[in-house]
Amino acid sequence: MEVTDVRYRVEVSKLIPFAAEILTKYGEDPEDAAITAEALAEADICGVRSHGFVRFGQYINRVKQGSLAVKTPVSIISESRNTALLDGHNGFGFVVCQKALEIARAKAEKSNIAFVSVKNSNHFGAAGIWASRLAGRDMVAFVGTNAEPIVSAPGGLGRAIGSNPFSWAAPAGKYGQLCLDISAGAMAQGKIWEYRRLNKPFPPHCWLGPDGVETTDPFYTDFAEFIMMPFGGHKGFGLAVMMEVFTSLLSGGPLDAEIPSLARDMDKQQHLTQFFCAISVETFRPLAEFVGDSERLIEYLHSLPVKEGAAPVMYPGEPEFISRRAALKDGLLIPETVVRELNELAESVGVAGAAQIFDQRLEMS
Amino acid sequence: MEVTDVRYRVEVSKLIPFAAEILTKYGEDPEDAAITAEALAEADICGVRSHGFVRFGQYINRVKQGSLAVKTPVSIISESRNTALLDGHNGFGFVVCQKALEIARAKAEKSNIAFVSVKNSNHFGAAGIWASRLAGRDMVAFVGTNAEPIVSAPGGLGRAIGSNPFSWAAPAGKYGQLCLDISAGAMAQGKIWEYRRLNKPFPPHCWLGPDGVETTDPFYTDFAEFIMMPFGGHKGFGLAVMMEVFTSLLSGGPLDAEIPSLARDMDKQQHLTQFFCAISVETFRPLAEFVGDSERLIEYLHSLPVKEGAAPVMYPGEPEFISRRAALKDGLLIPETVVRELNELAESVGVAGAAQIFDQRLEMS
Repeated sequence: MEVTDVRYRVEVSKLIPFAAEILTKYGEDPEDAAITAEALAEADICGVRSHGFVRFGQYINRVKQGSLAVKTPVSIISESRNTALLDGHNGFGFVVCQKALEIARAKAEKSNIAFVSVKNSNHFGAAGIWASRLAGRDMVAFVGTNAEPIVSAPGGLGRAIGSNPFSWAAPAGKYGQLCLDISAGAMAQGKIWEYRRLNKPFPPHCWLGPDGVETTDPFYTDFAEFIMMPFGGHKGFGLAVMMEVFTSLLSGGPLDAEIPSLARDMDKQQHLTQFFCAISVETFRPLAEFVGDSERLIEYLHSLPVKEGAAPVMYPGEPEFISRRAALKDGLLIPETVVRELNELAESVGVAGAAQIFDQRLEMS
Repeated sequence: MEVTDVRYRVEVSKLIPFAAEILTKYGEDPEDAAITAEALAEADICGVRSHGFVRFGQYINRVKQGSLAVKTPVSIISESRNTALLDGHNGFGFVVCQKALEIARAKAEKSNIAFVSVKNSNHFGAAGIWASRLAGRDMVAFVGTNAEPIVSAPGGLGRAIGSNPFSWAAPAGKYGQLCLDISAGAMAQGKIWEYRRLNKPFPPHCWLGPDGVETTDPFYTDFAEFIMMPFGGHKGFGLAVMMEVFTSLLSGGPLDAEIPSLARDMDKQQHLTQFFCAISVETFRPLAEFVGDSERLIEYLHSLPVKEGAAPVMYPGEPEFISRRAALKDGLLIPETVVRELNELAESVGVAGAAQIFDQRLEMS
């Protein structure tokens, strides 16, 4: 069944305060609400729509169910000149992570390299957004999170480990940043809808059914019941396991296996853990030289010959760079379902202005 | 054509001084020769045979050709409380990396987290050996290297980027360590021989021919002409590109694309770059708690159900842990070709004792 893809064109500068106002009505502090809305918008701006406003309703639902605290009184459990361990007290992941990022940058500016660990946190959206912010124009960043189990082990029958995304980022002058954001799954969950819409089989080695049997049939089971296979077999699986070292093991939070489901266990706290590592480039060499080499690396990648009909080689972060440029110029394209949800949430707490923000309805081909 | 696999059983404690003596005769300082021989033995002990004594002749050849300096006068270009940039002066990678590792550990012990960068280095063997040593019993380690281009870009026709292996390691009590060592290639080059021996096609998406055409035929081209495809498409490729940030870009060494081939350009210096990042666990939480959780994570992985006939789930580093236990108990199994090369090199510089070391010839089934 092919359905029409309807979206609304929205100006970023209008969407953020609108979403922040809704969050404030639900009880989030205005400053924290702005941080949350900005991080969600940033994901949409970069084209990482699976981690943008499509998640908004889920967060609000968790607040309503009491599994996500609407206030985020971040506290510092321990710290040194170049490290810190923060407690997010089960508040918004965006808020504790923004604080962790600022501390990591400040410490790396003074002490070359810093590592900030976060516990009792929640979903922080897209890892790449955080690594990109942490790196800014002068640092190399390494950011990661743990998550509920969704990825199978090689040869395994069920959910074994989180998709545990991590991201590396570095400044790249006129090309923005080199920024890689990857999770351990062979295919993102959101893509299941695409294969269903086109009635197309999955490529092999992407999904297991709930019975542990590998399948290429996008209708094999309920959307939420598919089990992700790791990309690259033991390599992807190993990356996810090792992310536990940097997240749960260093911070002392629960293991992936002990984390309830974000979407299915709406009333249960997740207690996620994250980390923010920053390395000041100038510690090693002049920034201009580093950036010159980043640009040189990117230009080399762009010069590589490709197969007839293949897309040119892109650098990690280039799709996001292109998407960001378009979004800031032409606005965001938000799916109708998300707009409807935002409107309902706004109405339910008496936030006005939705009609003015979502006034450009588009039917995509 | 199936050939008999002949190996010699060798005691590690005899092999290391024998190999070190050969290196010393070629001009390496005795202490540095011991470091080199130990690192090669360590790879064989851990079952990473592609980075063990099979490489010995290649290193000696480079010394003879003048592209690898037999003395390694490591110097410190710059340093701070928790960082350093070392110059390997084109000596043995093992020697400059051992120095870098010791500096990184010492700095992390005093300053929680340390990052040591290395330039003008050479091949350092297996990344996992270094991360494992750096982590020891009390640190989390992150180690990586750049390398000559051998991996293709997604959709690309030729060699684009190095396989750029990196490794993460952490202490895991009675299970040794959690240790992941991965490169960007879908299949290790050494495995081509195995597919040829068994006359078996490659799995898809592993190799391109020199013409840029994907092939599953292990006889499609000369061994050295195959071009590795990245594992996981843009994910594996992206990991390799980002390794350039941590290696060449931070240290100021050449990009992968500028590095001559280890095996084919024997007379050309490689100027590789590496890094050693260590995080002291106690900075964040008591070591015993961290190790308890490492063990708990491993026991969870071991408890996972698998498909009928599938091997049990292993933790990253477990194959190496098992191989190490066997090698230290029963000795190493070194292929006949490698033994022959070692014997010839020993004879050519008047090192005796080969007959006593390689006295157990075995025909493997």
